[in-house]
Amino acid sequence: MSADAFVTRFDPPIGDGIGPLASLRLAVKDNFDIAGHVTGAGNPEWADTHNPAQDTAPLVSHLIKLGTHLVGKTQMDELAYSLMGQNARYGTPENPAGPGRVPGGSSSGSASAVAAGLADIGLGTDTGGSVRIPAAFCGLWGWRPTHGLLDARGLLPLAPSYDVPGFMTRDGATLQHLAELLAPEAAPPRGEPRVPADMWDFADAETLSALAPLRQGDPAPLLSLRLREALLPTFRVCQGAEVAQVFGAWIKEHEPAFGPGVRERFAGAMALAPQDISAAQSMRAEITGAIDAALNGGIIRVPTAPGPAPLLTLDGQGMEAYRNRALTLLCLSGHAGLPQVTIPLRSATGLPIGLSLIGPRGSDAGLIAMAVDMAKSTR
Amino acid sequence: MSADAFVTRFDPPIGDGIGPLASLRLAVKDNFDIAGHVTGAGNPEWADTHNPAQDTAPLVSHLIKLGTHLVGKTQMDELAYSLMGQNARYGTPENPAGPGRVPGGSSSGSASAVAAGLADIGLGTDTGGSVRIPAAFCGLWGWRPTHGLLDARGLLPLAPSYDVPGFMTRDGATLQHLAELLAPEAAPPRGEPRVPADMWDFADAETLSALAPLRQGDPAPLLSLRLREALLPTFRVCQGAEVAQVFGAWIKEHEPAFGPGVRERFAGAMALAPQDISAAQSMRAEITGAIDAALNGGIIRVPTAPGPAPLLTLDGQGMEAYRNRALTLLCLSGHAGLPQVTIPLRSATGLPIGLSLIGPRGSDAGLIAMAVDMAKSTR
Repeated sequence: MSADAFVTRFDPPIGDGIGPLASLRLAVKDNFDIAGHVTGAGNPEWADTHNPAQDTAPLVSHLIKLGTHLVGKTQMDELAYSLMGQNARYGTPENPAGPGRVPGGSSSGSASAVAAGLADIGLGTDTGGSVRIPAAFCGLWGWRPTHGLLDARGLLPLAPSYDVPGFMTRDGATLQHLAELLAPEAAPPRGEPRVPADMWDFADAETLSALAPLRQGDPAPLLSLRLREALLPTFRVCQGAEVAQVFGAWIKEHEPAFGPGVRERFAGAMALAPQDISAAQSMRAEITGAIDAALNGGIIRVPTAPGPAPLLTLDGQGMEAYRNRALTLLCLSGHAGLPQVTIPLRSATGLPIGLSLIGPRGSDAGLIAMAVDMAKSTR
Repeated sequence: MSADAFVTRFDPPIGDGIGPLASLRLAVKDNFDIAGHVTGAGNPEWADTHNPAQDTAPLVSHLIKLGTHLVGKTQMDELAYSLMGQNARYGTPENPAGPGRVPGGSSSGSASAVAAGLADIGLGTDTGGSVRIPAAFCGLWGWRPTHGLLDARGLLPLAPSYDVPGFMTRDGATLQHLAELLAPEAAPPRGEPRVPADMWDFADAETLSALAPLRQGDPAPLLSLRLREALLPTFRVCQGAEVAQVFGAWIKEHEPAFGPGVRERFAGAMALAPQDISAAQSMRAEITGAIDAALNGGIIRVPTAPGPAPLLTLDGQGMEAYRNRALTLLCLSGHAGLPQVTIPLRSATGLPIGLSLIGPRGSDAGLIAMAVDMAKSTR
């Protein structure tokens, strides 16, 4: 079942269009509050049990003040707890850059709208990859900001210690402009990039070929084998514990009919044992320390995802295998709260492929500027 | 550097063309003896230090007696100790089904010749995948026979307890005919196919989508995690130990200038410690027992390779990552001496993808018949 990228369109758009982002069309994921509208978050029971928002999320208001035209609210995966953009309840937005393929999620509609040219800036949220994946799948630039850098009030949380608002655009210049306005740079990243072989190994051969020009650098492994193998289970447990805190009581009260995959993830999150959670939180601290030590103020280049967007027809087991490899790559910046930017490239067969830079906390604008330069010199 | 598929052409072809395989053109990998010709095995120092063969390998003679026309000897990877078809000394045969991509090896020239229509039957050898991989990469049918079923005399060994002669053809009917002539069936495979999730997880999303129609069956894992993780290191050590026995003395005497990858593999093989070898041989026995128990007289369906043929431009690290995943899948039948047939399918972007059936020892002709039926009902 396919769905429109938008759940609500504002015509005329909201905003006077005056400011440094004058008249750029903004599409906002339906987990940000917009005053007077129900924040639906991709799940019909959620929409049915909540009143319209009283206030607009401060980040959205700020973007409007900067001159953007808010053109609509966009479709998303159920409560943002998914990665492929498939929503069993409302349908799956199209991937304009890869017909027949998933758009990526959970910020599926914002990505779809920007890739289709229906908006210029897609606002989404990223917990485990929900901006970076739809950007990579739809051939867009994507920015997961430093954790805590952008105002997250008025945003429906999923796992707050991982959640960040994030952006998708068709061109690097727009993203760079946005970052300069929202995140004046503290310290630019420095030194030679690392291209850690232990992380590149998660990518398929087509992706490695597409990204080959950007694999120059120090290939030393980022993490010990023990920490590398802990990346994904640690993410699952730490994220799940927060998810259960955020949604557990509501789920027990309303018993929503989640789609496949989402249902199992919520059930798993709500069944976590306290000792497993505290062990995972300790492990997260150890992983973060190791990533910081390896980064050492510099940048890491990695594939954003293991491969291009899977076909819509890929079965559940195949999607799960893909997701596991993807989340392992994606949770590096998630665990450590680091900024990450994904650059759109193409495979030999023409499919969108993402290459990512991860930098030190607060280096966002410098990191994006570096990515823009890198993309220019690659083409 | 690209190379001709053939190292020697026979014009007119060898053979009177009378018999059940009348006038089918046969291309033979240059590690089978052909009387009067040096068996070059893809390495110039080997060719320089060996005299022309006195006798033709009995399997080749038998194929000629069955009516084939021997049209030439074909290029291969150096001493067959490689998987991608790249030969740094003589060049890499083209992949007619995937321009710009490796043909797969080590039976690269036989695959290239058959895919280009210059021969109808490609004879190769398969130790760790050297028939199955070039077949899958070049869009061909490929058959790795039950270990010991076909006559291996006059064949330059690599690792004898894994080595088998094997065949590649453009169509299933030719392969089936060949198998019926060479390997009258003992017991056909029986029961429902297994499609073990632990093995399918090695494939990329494009490959999983292409093979989805043939993933029906029991998805239970084939092996315990411990044995699954032992598959590749056990193969490396067991194979390496035999390689060192076969080639060690010659390499020490002649110090050949192997190409990249091949050089390191030979050096690693010759440096193996006796206690590691005996541990690996015990582990191989345990793996074989577990595979036999899981197979239980029936068949397993798995992707032949993790993905389509890599681009020629993929870097060494990328090739190594691909090879590791591939060898893990490929060594199931290698360890256990089981027959395997690979069926040519296509990805959504038009690249050749192989789907394999593995059956009980001696079931070769029945397994190929089953594969032919399966391919018909899939298209």
